[in-house]
Amino acid sequence: MKSKLGVAIVGIGGAVGTTMVSGIELLKQGLIDTCGLPLAGLDSDLIGYSEIEFAGWDLNPATLAEAAVSHDVLSLKQFAAVEEALASVVPWRAVGNTSFLSNIEGENFDGGMDHRDAIAQIRSHLAGFHERTAEVVVINLASTEKLTELSIPEFGSTEAFEAALDENSPAVSPAMLYAYAAICEGIPYGNFTPSIAADIPALMRLAETKGVPIAGKDGKTGQTFIKTVLAPALRSRALRVDGWYSTNILGNRDGLALSNEDSLASKVKTKHSVLRTILGYDVEDHIVDIRYYKPRGDDKEAWDSIDFSGFLGQSMQLKVNFLCKDSILAAPLAIEIARCLEFAKRRGEGGVQEQLSVFFKLPMTKAGEPEHAFHRQEAMLRSWLEA
Amino acid sequence: MKSKLGVAIVGIGGAVGTTMVSGIELLKQGLIDTCGLPLAGLDSDLIGYSEIEFAGWDLNPATLAEAAVSHDVLSLKQFAAVEEALASVVPWRAVGNTSFLSNIEGENFDGGMDHRDAIAQIRSHLAGFHERTAEVVVINLASTEKLTELSIPEFGSTEAFEAALDENSPAVSPAMLYAYAAICEGIPYGNFTPSIAADIPALMRLAETKGVPIAGKDGKTGQTFIKTVLAPALRSRALRVDGWYSTNILGNRDGLALSNEDSLASKVKTKHSVLRTILGYDVEDHIVDIRYYKPRGDDKEAWDSIDFSGFLGQSMQLKVNFLCKDSILAAPLAIEIARCLEFAKRRGEGGVQEQLSVFFKLPMTKAGEPEHAFHRQEAMLRSWLEA
Amino acid sequence: MKSKLGVAIVGIGGAVGTTMVSGIELLKQGLIDTCGLPLAGLDSDLIGYSEIEFAGWDLNPATLAEAAVSHDVLSLKQFAAVEEALASVVPWRAVGNTSFLSNIEGENFDGGMDHRDAIAQIRSHLAGFHERTAEVVVINLASTEKLTELSIPEFGSTEAFEAALDENSPAVSPAMLYAYAAICEGIPYGNFTPSIAADIPALMRLAETKGVPIAGKDGKTGQTFIKTVLAPALRSRALRVDGWYSTNILGNRDGLALSNEDSLASKVKTKHSVLRTILGYDVEDHIVDIRYYKPRGDDKEAWDSIDFSGFLGQSMQLKVNFLCKDSILAAPLAIEIARCLEFAKRRGEGGVQEQLSVFFKLPMTKAGEPEHAFHRQEAMLRSWLEA
Amino acid sequence: MKSKLGVAIVGIGGAVGTTMVSGIELLKQGLIDTCGLPLAGLDSDLIGYSEIEFAGWDLNPATLAEAAVSHDVLSLKQFAAVEEALASVVPWRAVGNTSFLSNIEGENFDGGMDHRDAIAQIRSHLAGFHERTAEVVVINLASTEKLTELSIPEFGSTEAFEAALDENSPAVSPAMLYAYAAICEGIPYGNFTPSIAADIPALMRLAETKGVPIAGKDGKTGQTFIKTVLAPALRSRALRVDGWYSTNILGNRDGLALSNEDSLASKVKTKHSVLRTILGYDVEDHIVDIRYYKPRGDDKEAWDSIDFSGFLGQSMQLKVNFLCKDSILAAPLAIEIARCLEFAKRRGEGGVQEQLSVFFKLPMTKAGEPEHAFHRQEAMLRSWLEA
Repeated sequence: MKSKLGVAIVGIGGAVGTTMVSGIELLKQGLIDTCGLPLAGLDSDLIGYSEIEFAGWDLNPATLAEAAVSHDVLSLKQFAAVEEALASVVPWRAVGNTSFLSNIEGENFDGGMDHRDAIAQIRSHLAGFHERTAEVVVINLASTEKLTELSIPEFGSTEAFEAALDENSPAVSPAMLYAYAAICEGIPYGNFTPSIAADIPALMRLAETKGVPIAGKDGKTGQTFIKTVLAPALRSRALRVDGWYSTNILGNRDGLALSNEDSLASKVKTKHSVLRTILGYDVEDHIVDIRYYKPRGDDKEAWDSIDFSGFLGQSMQLKVNFLCKDSILAAPLAIEIARCLEFAKRRGEGGVQEQLSVFFKLPMTKAGEPEHAFHRQEAMLRSWLEA
Repeated sequence: MKSKLGVAIVGIGGAVGTTMVSGIELLKQGLIDTCGLPLAGLDSDLIGYSEIEFAGWDLNPATLAEAAVSHDVLSLKQFAAVEEALASVVPWRAVGNTSFLSNIEGENFDGGMDHRDAIAQIRSHLAGFHERTAEVVVINLASTEKLTELSIPEFGSTEAFEAALDENSPAVSPAMLYAYAAICEGIPYGNFTPSIAADIPALMRLAETKGVPIAGKDGKTGQTFIKTVLAPALRSRALRVDGWYSTNILGNRDGLALSNEDSLASKVKTKHSVLRTILGYDVEDHIVDIRYYKPRGDDKEAWDSIDFSGFLGQSMQLKVNFLCKDSILAAPLAIEIARCLEFAKRRGEGGVQEQLSVFFKLPMTKAGEPEHAFHRQEAMLRSWLEA
Repeated sequence: MKSKLGVAIVGIGGAVGTTMVSGIELLKQGLIDTCGLPLAGLDSDLIGYSEIEFAGWDLNPATLAEAAVSHDVLSLKQFAAVEEALASVVPWRAVGNTSFLSNIEGENFDGGMDHRDAIAQIRSHLAGFHERTAEVVVINLASTEKLTELSIPEFGSTEAFEAALDENSPAVSPAMLYAYAAICEGIPYGNFTPSIAADIPALMRLAETKGVPIAGKDGKTGQTFIKTVLAPALRSRALRVDGWYSTNILGNRDGLALSNEDSLASKVKTKHSVLRTILGYDVEDHIVDIRYYKPRGDDKEAWDSIDFSGFLGQSMQLKVNFLCKDSILAAPLAIEIARCLEFAKRRGEGGVQEQLSVFFKLPMTKAGEPEHAFHRQEAMLRSWLEA
Repeated sequence: MKSKLGVAIVGIGGAVGTTMVSGIELLKQGLIDTCGLPLAGLDSDLIGYSEIEFAGWDLNPATLAEAAVSHDVLSLKQFAAVEEALASVVPWRAVGNTSFLSNIEGENFDGGMDHRDAIAQIRSHLAGFHERTAEVVVINLASTEKLTELSIPEFGSTEAFEAALDENSPAVSPAMLYAYAAICEGIPYGNFTPSIAADIPALMRLAETKGVPIAGKDGKTGQTFIKTVLAPALRSRALRVDGWYSTNILGNRDGLALSNEDSLASKVKTKHSVLRTILGYDVEDHIVDIRYYKPRGDDKEAWDSIDFSGFLGQSMQLKVNFLCKDSILAAPLAIEIARCLEFAKRRGEGGVQEQLSVFFKLPMTKAGEPEHAFHRQEAMLRSWLEA
């Protein structure tokens, strides 16, 4: 019998991807409960966790069993239980481009492929996967690509984008190729990374026209999660934020990648300004540091120090120290995004799925500013699920 | 011209009371803005801050200027600006009872007064205050009283309570006398302390019958505020709280009082179990410590260490260190409660004002469990204000 | 061939005892290095780690392999490597007394034994152990006993103590019986617990007379270690400590025991006043809380908040959050104490070994106040080792 | 009568300089005690605090009273008490060079002066000051200059340096000119900043030859103080440091300056590697971040997260959060350095004063690696004072 949902992951061999696959397998075996899965236990029409099956691409040819050993996220007992299942997952050949990702580790890709050939290859993988599953969803978990300008002509319309594909334009990134291929196949696409993909106007419109659900971007797992929970409460109490200093230390591949793109990433962050939207004013001293710090591995630590003023103009401080685990927080969110995208498809709702904002640092919207306050995002999602 | 709102404070000479009076005076003088006042800037029909006037009782006969010096909350500049106004506030003679408050400092009360005489005295103060203000509201800020059993027959009905008053029953506390007197005068009553007052069935029914708004209890300022902000978010993400260790250090009179009543207070806390209501299950290791720590004075520090499990059953920690100021957080809430109670009276809404839950650690309800999640309490209040 | 040093542990089946035994076994197998062992790598005449062998008493009859499973300190790989060695360690029958330890778990003892019989049994175990090892040392790691008055006549002289033994006096605790038996056998005795044992005058003199090295008490592992490192530095900088708030949360058997004896333990702590000795004045607000908090297991967390004043009388704060592991810190110290006691014996130095102060919260001295400052204790030990 | 010690400060109008002057004045008036002054109360031959007088240079012409208002370090009461004394201190015209300090605020300097003219002007100020004080000492508190290469030929010998002065070499910085002028006048020189000054070989030899005491550099006030206290203790316990992440947030002029020179400063830090010297090995992940964060003003916050391994290779964490005040910690150290330099002069001890290492982040030595461990530095100083 076919699985009800096939999740095709870009970057399946990363820490988040292997944790997703392992987690669903452990759930199927009854060895873990649904702890950490936000939409478990709701009375909804989402597809069951045990009806999910995985496949995906990776620049690294290692099986997921090999990948899991190197990421060291599972306990020994958990690994023993899923080793066989993981060993059977061999990544498809991926699309790579060193001008968007300089330090590619792995050789499971052809560097010089034309855009159209790459798209054909991706669509063929997806079509094959669709034959053995009732529905397919693509989730992007690949390493963050170098950021480019969103507002160039090539990205402005579907026609211009397709012309750029034909001309093999260097502005088009692998993440866009995956997104384009999925949308063309009528397959929902979710972007869990900060890379530019389905958020260019060309692809947003294509998804809208074809009625394909898309969602993104950048999974809201650690510090931003806490930030979007606390900031609305500070505003409700009319406590004026004078400064917010955020430090992140992280020792996995993502940490390494981010520290290279530091300046760019922070520019993006500033631009989208989560805090300004929630608080209604600019926090003059809002500093975000992300540092690669090897001793932690996949364990991630965030330290936030918030300075704010209250009645009589007097100042106070709130400090938050979050000792968390990157993949443990991310994997269940990516699973829920996949379930929701499948549900949106079934309901015939195409284009940007704004009601999934609660899962993203930089939520995509059809138009206008996104909602950033966690509890309002949550309410938005719940009412959609109950509709 | 009459002030539109007279706020009569039980314990006006405490740190919170003097901060309320000073804050409104500084606002009138234009020396501070409305920072810290949660309902400022809303488009509502609440009475303006500058239309408020204060009076009140205190066991200590000192003027508010003297009290402000000992509490040391204002900056020197702020004190200079309000000294004259504070010096003109001389507390009314209070009702004291050493079996409910052992270490009374001050002699501004008659120990042996009969309940009925005490009530007459309170009502006469209130009636006099009402002559010079359009509306009066009573706010209880007095030191926390020794807790007694809520469910004794004397408290079960208005008739039984009035009989207990006639018999001068030792079960009746000063806080109840103030609440009873206010309700009899048709004056709204808000309880910002954990003391048992208008929350006994006898008084809840009396307020309902007479159409007098009442609200309580125990102002939600520091650690519980943060707790009711974070816990709903942890639940939304299906993160299972395994333990929550809360430490409070506090150096003002409240800290001293609380440390004496430690065990009782914590019993109450456990009983009402904020966390259980929000999370939907019992946190086995939920420990709350409150310690008197003189070096801090009115500065308060909370340290929370939260252990929780996520996907694959893996454990993580969140630690929150809140360096706050007790009266700076409390005073604006007490002001907003007074404004809302006046508004409720004007709207003809009597009895328990459940929509004020956002201001309280232990919200009173007409019936059933209270809402503890901060953002849902907030939504409840906003929709009432906009109605 | 005989091992050079036999360590006989009172309470060998506890978390610290099993970690000691496991650690030495892992070292012998070359699976760990000497990380965490303070005296490793010194050019000294201490006996080598691999020349140590263990035996001991426990109220619980379980083998050390069974004990290790319940304490859950070792990694799975480490357990696999030492399981066989641990399974071969079966605790000797212990001396128990419910009036000194109320909640004894385990039945590996005879409740009603006379003091003299108990001593004979202990000595017989020691004598047997000595036959197969060149030297024996006793280390007390048993659960903390109820504290009694140190200054009663029975404890004042060796004669009075021996009379008390003959009369089976209820003032004599199991910890004293073990210490007495060891000293009589000429075997050095180290007390890693806060229990009263060799620190009564009767036993200190006996050890002195017989030339038997003794040392204690209460291993300095976590918070007190940090406290005795930071306090001397604050004093060096003339920063005046106004308050020091120390919280401990701990989820193992020790935590449970301590929380029962809370008030007593803290009394002792206050009396010995580590801070007063180091700083040269009394810190008015020095608060120490120890709370049992199950989610952590053997992981221990300390949170210290220090308020101090500097130049111009201005106040500052230092906060220390120590996420440590009880047995991981304790076991290597207990091993070093055993090695040093053997060395003292070889050097012919009997009585209290004050130079071991660096290992103890409440260092025993021949006379006078102990040294508490970590770096001076450290210097004292180094110069003794090099002598 | 002449003051016994005149302290001539480079950058007297900064936060540390004004705090030094204010503090000594408050001490003279008996309004503060010696809290925060490390060498107070010792039985030594150092000159008394009340025998100190101040003068100095600043790029900004404002009086110290004006400077104190902008730094906002004193309490209102303290400012009122010293305002008159501060108003009488008008900075001497300074030596400025925009190629070593880009964003100079103030105009109290001549940009184009020749090195020899600048030296003559400095010497003339010093000579004048010496006429009214028994002894003079120079302390450098000026903003940190751009770092240059220490090992160029111009700095290698006194002759080469003097030739560079004659040729008006652009390699010579203002800090070197002040140091050179002081040494030529026979006046001791202490460098409290990270700037390169008396630490070039040319000047170290000159000071040695002329018998003039010099000391430096970079005052050890906050995070490095704590680091050099904790690291030796971790080493003593054989706990292996796997990573040390240090964040600093600071809102005063120093913070602003440092954040501009970020990369350079951190390079220096890495090179001198405090941790490597103390621990005896390289900590692979030792990260130091310094961020300008305006809401704090002169209040400084350090957050350290230390990852280390103990017995059985198990990992633990120690986190330190230091909420301190930059000038409050720095000013008393700079005062003690001045007193010690005067004492060294009186004792006839010229050249580098290595025994003052305890006051510096990067202690100068006559030769070889400096001692970094706080308690050993402290012992070195004490034994010198007692000699």
